[in-house]
Parts: sequence; C-alpha cells; structure tokens
Amino acid sequence: MNPLLLALLLPAAAVQQPQPQQPPSPAAPAATRPRATPAVVRVDPKVAALRDKALADATAYAIVEGLTTEIGPRPDGSPQQARAREWAVAKLKALGFRNVHIEPYVLENVWERGVETAEVVSPYPQPLRLTALGNSAATPPQGLTLPIAYFASFNDLALAPAGSLQGKIAFVSNQMQPTQDGSSYGSSGAARFVGANVAAKKGAAAIVIRSIGTDHGRGPHAGGTNFEPGVTPIPAAALSVADAENLERMVKLGAPVTFHLTLTPRNVGTRQSGNVVAEVPGSDPNAGVVLVGGHLDSWDLGTGAIDDASGVAITTAAAKLVMDAGRPRRTIRVVWFGDEETGGWGGQAYAKRHAGERHATAGESDFGADRVWRFETNLPQGARAIGDRLAAALAPLGIVRGTGAAGDGTDVGPMIRTGVAAIDLNQSGLRYFDWHHTPEDTLDRVDPEQLRQNVAAWTTMLTVVANASEEIGAVVPRP
Amino acid sequence: MNPLLLALLLPAAAVQQPQPQQPPSPAAPAATRPRATPAVVRVDPKVAALRDKALADATAYAIVEGLTTEIGPRPDGSPQQARAREWAVAKLKALGFRNVHIEPYVLENVWERGVETAEVVSPYPQPLRLTALGNSAATPPQGLTLPIAYFASFNDLALAPAGSLQGKIAFVSNQMQPTQDGSSYGSSGAARFVGANVAAKKGAAAIVIRSIGTDHGRGPHAGGTNFEPGVTPIPAAALSVADAENLERMVKLGAPVTFHLTLTPRNVGTRQSGNVVAEVPGSDPNAGVVLVGGHLDSWDLGTGAIDDASGVAITTAAAKLVMDAGRPRRTIRVVWFGDEETGGWGGQAYAKRHAGERHATAGESDFGADRVWRFETNLPQGARAIGDRLAAALAPLGIVRGTGAAGDGTDVGPMIRTGVAAIDLNQSGLRYFDWHHTPEDTLDRVDPEQLRQNVAAWTTMLTVVANASEEIGAVVPRP
Repeated sequence: MNPLLLALLLPAAAVQQPQPQQPPSPAAPAATRPRATPAVVRVDPKVAALRDKALADATAYAIVEGLTTEIGPRPDGSPQQARAREWAVAKLKALGFRNVHIEPYVLENVWERGVETAEVVSPYPQPLRLTALGNSAATPPQGLTLPIAYFASFNDLALAPAGSLQGKIAFVSNQMQPTQDGSSYGSSGAARFVGANVAAKKGAAAIVIRSIGTDHGRGPHAGGTNFEPGVTPIPAAALSVADAENLERMVKLGAPVTFHLTLTPRNVGTRQSGNVVAEVPGSDPNAGVVLVGGHLDSWDLGTGAIDDASGVAITTAAAKLVMDAGRPRRTIRVVWFGDEETGGWGGQAYAKRHAGERHATAGESDFGADRVWRFETNLPQGARAIGDRLAAALAPLGIVRGTGAAGDGTDVGPMIRTGVAAIDLNQSGLRYFDWHHTPEDTLDRVDPEQLRQNVAAWTTMLTVVANASEEIGAVVPRP
Repeated sequence: MNPLLLALLLPAAAVQQPQPQQPPSPAAPAATRPRATPAVVRVDPKVAALRDKALADATAYAIVEGLTTEIGPRPDGSPQQARAREWAVAKLKALGFRNVHIEPYVLENVWERGVETAEVVSPYPQPLRLTALGNSAATPPQGLTLPIAYFASFNDLALAPAGSLQGKIAFVSNQMQPTQDGSSYGSSGAARFVGANVAAKKGAAAIVIRSIGTDHGRGPHAGGTNFEPGVTPIPAAALSVADAENLERMVKLGAPVTFHLTLTPRNVGTRQSGNVVAEVPGSDPNAGVVLVGGHLDSWDLGTGAIDDASGVAITTAAAKLVMDAGRPRRTIRVVWFGDEETGGWGGQAYAKRHAGERHATAGESDFGADRVWRFETNLPQGARAIGDRLAAALAPLGIVRGTGAAGDGTDVGPMIRTGVAAIDLNQSGLRYFDWHHTPEDTLDRVDPEQLRQNVAAWTTMLTVVANASEEIGAVVPRP
C-alpha cells in the first residue's frame, strides 16, 4: 500500500475529482456507531454459516501461492505484471466468475531499477545495503563520493537552512514503531514521501533515508518518492534499517563520514497496463455494485505476497464463497488493480472508466495478511442498520467496531471520493512494516490461519452488504 | 562457527595431530558429573561477587559494537581482517591486557566472492537470491542455463546413480530445525559441507542448496564447501530459505525447471594473516595457561556480530573482570583467532606455535550471543572438584551441568586434541541459525542482556579455573 503519496504532494485541485453520481446524504453519525450498549441484532444463520465455512477456505492461500510461485515480483509496467494479468484472468475464470476481463490503460513514465550499491569510504570503510526509491534520479555511472549530512528526523531535515546541503548527501534516519492501525506509516513516512524533494530544494546532491520499516533487518524497504514540478530530481535511496543504524552509530562517533553512492535507475517511458475485473452478477441491477479488490502489482524486491497478492486473494475467495451460496441481490465486482505502488494508476483508471455507474459500497484489502481486528463504515443514514448487522456478524471473528469513518485505500479512493459508501476491514499492522516493500515480502510471511480469518471477515461483509434490502445511496466522503 | 568441515572430509591421518604434552589421565567419569544429588559446594563469596558484577558488564557490547561499526565484515584474508587485527591490538592494550601482540601466519588459497545471480528461466521466470559457497568454482561469465535435478535431502543426492547429473544443476533442499544444542547443524549441514563434492562426482555441472538455516528469509547463508583431491570443483551456491522453498514449489508443480546461474568467485592466492593474543599474567608459571577466545574473522555478507565478534567480546570482557580483581594463579590467555571460517587456520597456527607449552584448560565462545544454558567439562580425575565448584557457581545464571564431555570448537580443537582439558559453556542455538553466515548477522541480533549473562558465565569459569589449587594435567580427548 502506498497511501498519502499524492495527497501529500499535490494541491487538491490537481487530483481529478469525479463528481458525485447521486445527491449525497450524510453518513450515519459517528456517535451512533459504537454504542455504549451495542445494537442487539440477530445474525442471519445463513450469514453465520457462510462466515464459519470461510474459516476453512483454501482459495485465498492458493492464489497467494500461485502468484508468488508462478509469477513472482510484479513491478509496475513490467512484463511480469502483464503475465500476472493473464494468470489472473485464467484463475478468475476457473473459479467461476463472470464477465472476467482486462480493462487496459496506458502507464506513463515507467521507472526501472538499475545498479544500487553504497559504501562508507571513511572513516570506517564497509558496504551498506540500500535500494533506490521510485522516481529517484541516477548518479553518474561511477557513483558520487560525498560527505554525509545527518538528520535524526524529517523534521530536522525540513529545518536545515536553504543551500546548506550543497555538495552533500542528506541522511535522514527517523525511526518507525509498529502500530496496529498502521498510523505510524503516515507520521514516519514523510522522509520517504517528500524527503528527497525537500533535500533537493536545499541543494543536496542525493539523499539516503533509513527505511520506512519497523524491522532491524538488512532488506531495504522500497517505495516511491516524488518531486514537485520544477524541482530537479536527485538520487534517492533507502538504507536497510540495520545499515541505517550502523551509519548512525558512525556519525555519532564524531568524525565526518564520506559516502559513495551508485544508483542507475532510468525512466523507460510508456507501457500498456490494466485492471483485471471479475463479477458475481446480482439479481437487482439497480441496487448498485459492491466493489472490492486489491492490487496485482508489487514492488520488485520481494514476491508481493503480503503486498498485495493477499488482498486480491482474500477478496476473491470471499466473493467466490458468496457466489457459490447463491445469487446475491447486488453485483459483486472484484478488481485486481494495476499499478497501485507508483501512484494508484489502476484505481484512477477504474474511476474514470466507471464514472456514473452506480456503486453501493467500496472497500479494498491492502494491508497484508494478518487478521482483521476492526471494521469501519461510512454508510448513509438510511443504511446504518447494515453496520449493526455487520457488528454482530463479525464479532465472533474477534473484530471490533471502530469509532471513525471508513474510506481508506488508494485503489478504491477515487470512487469513494465521488460519494460511494465505504466499508473498511482493518488488518493488524503490527508485523506489516517489518516486511513491507522489502525482499522479505514472500509467501512465508503469510499466516494461513490469519489469512482465512480475513476471508471469513470479507465473506461476512459481502453477504451482508450484497444482500441488504436497504438502499445504499451516496454519502459525503470523509475529509 | 564451522565445525565438522575438516572432520567430515579428510581422513583422520591427514589432520596434523600434535602429540600430548604430558601423559594423559582419564577424564572424570561421566557418571560422576551429573549426580542424582549434586555435590554440595560452598561458592566462594569472591566468585559470586565477581559473577554478579559481570552481569552489569559493558565491555563486551562495546567490543561487538566497535567491530561491527568501525570495521564491518572481516572475510578471511581480506584487508578488513587486517584492519580488525590492528583494531584488536589497540582495544586489548587499552583494556589493560599484557603481552598484546599479533602472531602472524600465511593463509593459502584465499577465495573471493564475485558476481552471484540466479533466475528461473522457465516455466516461472523470476529472480532468486543465493550466495556462492566458499571454494565454489566459477561459472562462465555469462552463466550456465541448465535443468534442475531436485533432491529433497542430501541422502537422496547421495543415492543418485553415477553420471545421472550430467548436464544438470543439482538442487538439494533439506530442511533444518532449530535445536538448543545446535546439533541440527551437523545433521542438516552435509548438503553444504560435502554436497558439492558428491554432486561433482556424479557429473553435475553445478549445485544449489537450500541454505543451512532455520529461518524463512531472503538472506542466503554463506559457508564453506570442500572438494576431495582429484574432484574438479563445480559452482556451488546456497539459495535463501525462502527462495529454496519457492523453487521447491515450482519443482512440485511438475514441469521441468530450467535455471540460470552466474557465479564468478576466484582464488586470489596467498595472504598474510594472524591471531591476536593478549594475556592476564598468572602468579604460577607452572600451573599452565587457561586458553580462551573466539574468532575475529567473519563471513562477508553480514558484519559478524554473532559470528563471532560476540565470542571475542565475551571472553575478553570476562578475562578483564578477572584481571581487575587481582592476579590469578594461572595465566589467562585470550586469543582472537584468525580465519576460522574457511578452515580453522588460526587455531591450527596457534597449536603449531604453542606446541609443548603447558595449557591447563581450553575453551572457546563461537555460537552467538544468546545465553549459556549448559556447561560441560573434560577435566582429569584429580581436578573434578573444579567441575563441582563450577556447577554451584554457574547455577544462579540458569546454567545446568551437562552429561557429556567437553571438547567443542574449531579454534581450540587442535590444542584439545593434544590432551588439554576442555571446558565448554554452551550457548542456546535456538535463534543462532536464523542469522548464521547471512547478511542479517549484525549488531541488532545481539541481545545485550543475554550477552552479559555470557560474560558472567565466562567470568565465573575463569576465576574458578585460573585460581584452582588443583593441578590440571592432560586428559584423553573425547573421541
């Protein structure tokens, strides 16, 4: 997942905002969602039975295993991603979905990783492990050899005087601690999202950051960075957390540290890409589509198991269980989005193509494979009983009702911003940033039991929402 | 640590066995060591006080931090290892040790890592992570592209018919499970120690093995392999455990798997190397030296924190605590051995240089930084009361008395085989092989509290043994 990227960088007006498709009504007030005494609701035995059947699901793990074994890394704009789309079409058809197809779009400015090496030259010569950030510029082929300018945090970098980084490589080493709701990604992530842009404006020749991660390993965390229009991109890379800690210890010994950095990424231009779409047709074409999915692309260092083969697997397995239980009222549309990692291009292409088509709800799974611990909704007032039914049906899975409003997600975000009601099933983030965007994002990180709990949560949500008799109209999106 | 390597490969006669320095007496019988009712022994209050003081030791961590930060990887025969020797001399002098010096020797056939890349070419193209094994031959610069011949275990490889691996890359994927005493390294390690030799004899063009490790990560486990005289070395590499598991899944899908392997290591000839020696002089020159230490070299992928900066740090910190408490009866000699990883050359050079010099006991720390859970001795009958005193003094550290005989260690092994009594302080191996010989062997893996428990155990052992009034003569080495 890669939230915040555009939001942090682009003025609001620059993000194309499709217009609401129907007059929005206010979401059910937050105060009525978590009650001191929860609404007492009888759980439909069919919902409970399907939820419990999902706890034995084998489809999701098979999809994660297939994508990581038969395809592997799926970087944006790559031949592997194209191969993954074909794999997805075959898999979704084999599972019995209808209307399985690719919705193509063009991906601009595709960035490709090159050589990436680094060494401390003095006073403590040794190699360090790092990876270039997406959109990083290249160093000369022979690399740059320059002194380090150390900043303990992004805040300290932002306070550095103009021009003070001329002839230096900025090194920002802010820590990240695990949080269940993933919120530390937002607060720690600025060093990656905008650190390079800030350093470039202050004259830095390059920037290296401590990986945005909660581990202490040698696998650096990849991810995109972005430069404002008019700012010339500089080479930008993330050191593994262990290497950043080592470099920080060297800095603190007091002598100036000279660093040699070689990065040779390049921009390879335009590539064809696409979203893969599959449906469970509903009986009531006027009731609106229930949109779910994850993203098919991944960063290149791992095999994209937790980010995000798991998300497409969970939502697909859940939709199949609902499909096999009989035709729902609403059409369920499962989308394996393309090119989330470098800017959410798949989600934007979907929103553009499907603008004006009635959607009842939207939600995505893009936070790993660990258990769902909380759900949030942003349903219109007339549909708030759906939230009560969800609370009762999800509770046996250990899922609590949140006190906020739903609306997370890079891929469904563009639809949600048009006023589509949102339902979020929040996964635990306590381990996610140990492996996020690293070589360690492999099948081994997926706990099959927690993956099945996810399938059960999504199956429950889908059967409740797709069959709800209430109308689910447009809402005011959360800010 | 790299035990078994020579023992597995070389006929006994080929290992130079120095002769016993004095007539050996049988070790205290095993049956008397762990008693149903342990011997009741009053712990000398000075021993207890020094042990407990050691639990607050800061020297060991400072040494590990210094070696990993200021030096980094210290591969055998490298300039970094030479730099580490100078660092060691300065550090040992600063700590107050006497007779600090380097004992130089020549290292033959130094092996240097080159390029190492691999990809599955078909049917599931994707890159895999691996590292060349020490003594591996090189592939052609453009690599080899050949089918995989899969073996679930070393045993299966050994059963393959002669000539059956012609034109193939053998892939041996035996699992390793963690054991507290580290014994699974011996049983799982054959695939690395001798797998390449066996595969070469059966005609294989190359071999890749599942790393000898208990993790599921992407960092491959380096280590040496060996070829019999007359067998032409082949390219040999270890896949990370995660990559081996992925390749194994591909194989099990049934279609033939074609692999592309590029390894360009080379033999750079002869280099100067050496052991670093420091002493705590004893008051009785006839009582024999108490020899302790670890090894200064490391594999190149990590920074050698657990293997074996921790070992030199623990034994040095303990010797310093004993030194600072007053002159012991016996001289304590701390050796930071060179070139353990590629064949125990430092230990062999030490034994050759010090042959005939009276040693009372020997023991090394080369199994990480996790807590000591057990001790073993191989003391002569007349000195068995020392074992009883050790049992009583070590018990408050949670250390049990083992039922076997001591004598572990690549570096002190050549001295022990001459009949020097052995004392082993066994560290827990439950996490060690997650990181052993991988990029992940960094400072972050060292738990400071467990490291201090090690220092306390070694301090206790040293003060008891170096001050023991009993004579400690030669013993029959354990088989």
